This record gives sequence, C-alpha cells and structure tokens, in this order.
Amino acid sequence: MPLPRDADPDALLAAARAGDRRALARLVSEVERGGDAGRAVSRVVHPEGGHAYTVGITGAPGAGKSTLTSAVVAEIRSAGDRVAVVAIDPSSPFTGGAILGDRVRMDEHALDEGVFIRSMATRGHLGGLTLATPQAIRVLDAAGWPWVLVETVGVGQVEVEIAGSADTTVVVVNPGWGDAVQANKAGLMEIADIFVINKADRPGAAETRRDLAQMLELAGVRSEGGWEPPVIDTVANRHEGADELWAAVTRHRELVTRTGQLEERRSVRLTDELRHIVAARLLEQAMATTAGAAFEDACADVLARRLDPWTAVDRLLDPA
Amino acid sequence: MPLPRDADPDALLAAARAGDRRALARLVSEVERGGDAGRAVSRVVHPEGGHAYTVGITGAPGAGKSTLTSAVVAEIRSAGDRVAVVAIDPSSPFTGGAILGDRVRMDEHALDEGVFIRSMATRGHLGGLTLATPQAIRVLDAAGWPWVLVETVGVGQVEVEIAGSADTTVVVVNPGWGDAVQANKAGLMEIADIFVINKADRPGAAETRRDLAQMLELAGVRSEGGWEPPVIDTVANRHEGADELWAAVTRHRELVTRTGQLEERRSVRLTDELRHIVAARLLEQAMATTAGAAFEDACADVLARRLDPWTAVDRLLDPA
Repeated sequence: MPLPRDADPDALLAAARAGDRRALARLVSEVERGGDAGRAVSRVVHPEGGHAYTVGITGAPGAGKSTLTSAVVAEIRSAGDRVAVVAIDPSSPFTGGAILGDRVRMDEHALDEGVFIRSMATRGHLGGLTLATPQAIRVLDAAGWPWVLVETVGVGQVEVEIAGSADTTVVVVNPGWGDAVQANKAGLMEIADIFVINKADRPGAAETRRDLAQMLELAGVRSEGGWEPPVIDTVANRHEGADELWAAVTRHRELVTRTGQLEERRSVRLTDELRHIVAARLLEQAMATTAGAAFEDACADVLARRLDPWTAVDRLLDPA
Repeated sequence: MPLPRDADPDALLAAARAGDRRALARLVSEVERGGDAGRAVSRVVHPEGGHAYTVGITGAPGAGKSTLTSAVVAEIRSAGDRVAVVAIDPSSPFTGGAILGDRVRMDEHALDEGVFIRSMATRGHLGGLTLATPQAIRVLDAAGWPWVLVETVGVGQVEVEIAGSADTTVVVVNPGWGDAVQANKAGLMEIADIFVINKADRPGAAETRRDLAQMLELAGVRSEGGWEPPVIDTVANRHEGADELWAAVTRHRELVTRTGQLEERRSVRLTDELRHIVAARLLEQAMATTAGAAFEDACADVLARRLDPWTAVDRLLDPA
C-alpha cells in the first residue's frame, strides 16, 4: 500500500511499527531536516521511547568502522535481535552532500528485514548533527528497534561528542595507530567504554595494545563504577572478534543497568540535549536579528574597522 | 623585562608589536579563553588589523599537514617574511587537553624569531574554535605578522569550516587517498583553492592526480573568477615541492586581490562571524535560562516522558 504524501507523524509511526521501512525512513528524514515537521515527529515519538539501547562506534577514518559495524550487526542478528544503524557523514559545508561510499560495506545486510541502515548528514545548520542524531535515535526507538548502532568518524568536535553520548561507546583503532589518531587521542580515550584493535592481524597489534594500556593507566580516569575498558582484537572483514566485542557490549550494558549508571548517563545526555535545543531556538531568534538592515550596517561598520565584532553585536542585541 | 601580571590589552599589544613573544602568547590565550578579557583584546586589536594574509592548510589525519606547514614556513622565511602558524587541535570533550605531538615537527623553526607557532584547543564550549580562531588571527594581524597559516584536520564539521574560511585554502591528500578522506571528500573538494598530493614519492600519485582531476570536473563548481585549483606534488619531509606550492599561493593571492574576490570573501566571512557571535551571546542567555529550577523541572518532565524536548524548551523560553 503506497504511503500517502500527507501522512501525519502518528500514521507514519504506526506504519513504521508495522514494518513499513519507507515510513520509518520518512520519519528519520523529517527529524534530520528539522523545522516544524521534524519537531512534530519528535513530539509523537518521544513518549513511545526509552527501550532501545544505543552503541556508539567511532575511530579514525580508515579504521574499519563500517566493516566492524557490519560484523556487529551480524552478531546481533544471529542472537535473534533486530538492529538499526545510524551512520554519521560529515557533509560538505557547501552542498550538504553525504558521501555514501562507506555504506556499500553494509550490503551484506541489505535484504535483511531485521536490519535498518541510515546515513545522516548535516545540512550545514549550526548544531545540525548534534540535534538531529538524538531525534533519529528516538524515532528508531519508538518504532521498536531494540538496538541502535551509531557510527561516527572519531575526529572533529561534533562527531566525537555524538559517539560519546551512546549508552556504550566503542573506540576502534588499528595496529600502529600513530598519525591517524594523534589529532584526537585524548578525546577518544576518554569516551571509550570498549577499545577495539581492528585489523589485528597486521604488524604492531601488540605494541598498540601496550600503548593503550599505558595511556589508560596514565589517564587514570577509568574503572569508574567498576568497569575497566577492555581491549579487543578484531579482524572485522573476516568477522573475527565480533563475538567477543558483542559479549563485552553485553557485559557493559548489564553493569551500567545494574549500577544505575545508565539512568545517570541518559539524564546527563538529556540535559545536554535540552541545552542544545535552547541554543537552537535562540539561534532562530539570532537569524531574525541578523536578517535586517541593522545587521548589514553592523557588518559594514566592522568591515570598515569602525567597530569591533563584539561591540557591534552588543549594540544589535541591545539597541538601547 | 618581566610582563606585569595585570598588563592591559593595549600594553600587551604594544609589547607584542615590539617583538615580545610572551605578550603575544598572552593575547592569544585571552581570546582563546573567551569571556570579557578575550573580548577586551578583540576590541583593541580589531582596528589595527586587515594586513595579514591567511592560508588554511587542511587534510586527513596523517596526510603530513604539519610537515608541509613547516616546509611552507621555510619558504616564507627564505623570502624574508615573518610568519605565524595557528594549529587547531580538536580537544578532548572532557579535559580540554590539546595533543601537541604534532607540533614537534615544527622544531626546526623553534629558535627563529620570525616564526610564531601556536596550538589552539577548544575548551568544550559550543562554537569555541569557530569563535576563537578568527580572534586569534586578529591578534596576530594586529601584532604585525604578515602571514598567518591555519592548520586544521580536514575531518569534522567545525574544523573544515575553519580551514575553508582562510584567504587561500590548501587541501592536502596522499597517494591512494581512499578510506582516509572518503568521510569528507566533498567538503574538502569544495573549499580547496589548491590541492597538494603530499608523499608524492609513494605509489599511486598518478592515480590520485587523475582522481582529483576527474572529481574537479564532476564537481563543476571550480574555476570561478578564472581560478582552477592546481594540483601540486610535494614530499614535505624533504621540502620538495614547497616552493611550487608557495608560488601557487602567491598566484592565488594576486588573483583574488586583483579581482576583488578577496574583499568579497572577507566580507562573507565576517558576516558569518557576526552571526556566530550573535549566537554565542544568545547562548549565554540560554545558559542562564538553563541554570535554574525551571530547567531542572523541564529535564525531569522530559526524562519521565511527560513532555517532549521541543515542547519543554518552548515552555521554558516562553512561560506565558
């Protein structure tokens, strides 16, 4: 049955729950686009959620995140569960185009009704991914997907933040991780609940394991709540080690659920999200502020160096 | 003579212009930290600027950006000019720590009074790097540095945006660039004024050159204002090709200056910056909004699924 073009969020959610993948995709698109329609979707899905468990998978470009994610999907499927994947593509600041090359590696699951894969891109608006990702997770949660994997590149302020706000965060490195992660090693170290050394059949795996152990010891921030991030070897393109990784995720889930850390994390995350939404709402006001002649005059004054940027903005926002 | 602890921005700027590097470093630190002190610095330096030319250097982690930047610094020095480098380190979302390993490659310039190198990190505040980077450039400009190189990792929404807002943007790739840049190929393609194939002595350089040419043709967005992004081979750790790169930067500068594109670009960039500052100011309001009991109540309501996030924020911002 074709989906009516004017289907409302309630109808779409009902369809998505009944297994209609186009309805699900449409709901995700709406929250990705934002705006009033996206907010209407959030309103409908939010009360229905709270059941999905999210796993962030992140690491440097080329670390094999997509292949590993695909192997984890196979693990979850063989355990009999359904699983959704949200893959974050940093987009062009100009065209907003997402690069989908990565996604082909997920092809092995393309015909499996128990797997839903979705790439997301920011359309260049401030805070786009930061706001859209939790909304997309909410949609999948409300539609009844018990597992949501969130794959992001582990470089970049926004992207690391998104990966780190999952219920369990997996950081993927490779043997001889040097240059490729140095730019953001500390950031990745601190969000990791589980480390994976992917491509562990390559030379240097032992050294990498030793480096990780050393850095974890140095960091000293670990083992809160009785959890020490395990380091797991995988060769994702041969599905090796994915079972061990999945067992670690399950152990971590049990622990954070039992100790109340999960609730705590989700509460902190929600507080952050509300802050971002407050900021987004105020930014809309800002856009209105910056649309008129007064803003153009301010720009001209700053460009001519008659005013500095901060003073110009102060005058715009408080013209008295 | 030791710098007085309570030196005001005017005194610091005068000292920085006279060659006092600690005064310069202090000014950059102030704008990096933001807040009232940072804004006071912006007010003092803004009227004095407009003379520096900025060059963005970006690319995937491990592409050899720092080594290339160092080679470019050597070119500028041998032409007799002074040059400042601003290196952007994505920071840990937790500790705010910058990873400085990269910087050691700049050691060859450590004793050269004509070179000033500065790493910057965001302290986790929203829009931190986006706001702080242009302020830091303003400081260096006002202090009389004629060239400012801005090195960022070419992955991540914020980082690509910063690199793309230089007067000339150089995108660094390697032979066989596949996985490492796929995550953000389109974004990098569109901000590039000049491409560099670094490590061009490795296998695959010819293919990479062909790929780039093809993608540029496909993109079709290029050659605006009569400029076609050249593709330059370098082996930065042997300083090979840096002269050719520098010649290309100089050609690009001449062109954009002559055609008025430089003024246009700077005007667009300033408009963006003012928008960000408006947003930051409103975000401060947001933080005030989200500090009280009303915000805690809203969080509790959303957590208990009595309210969705958007409605909760609407009520917070407009309690009527």
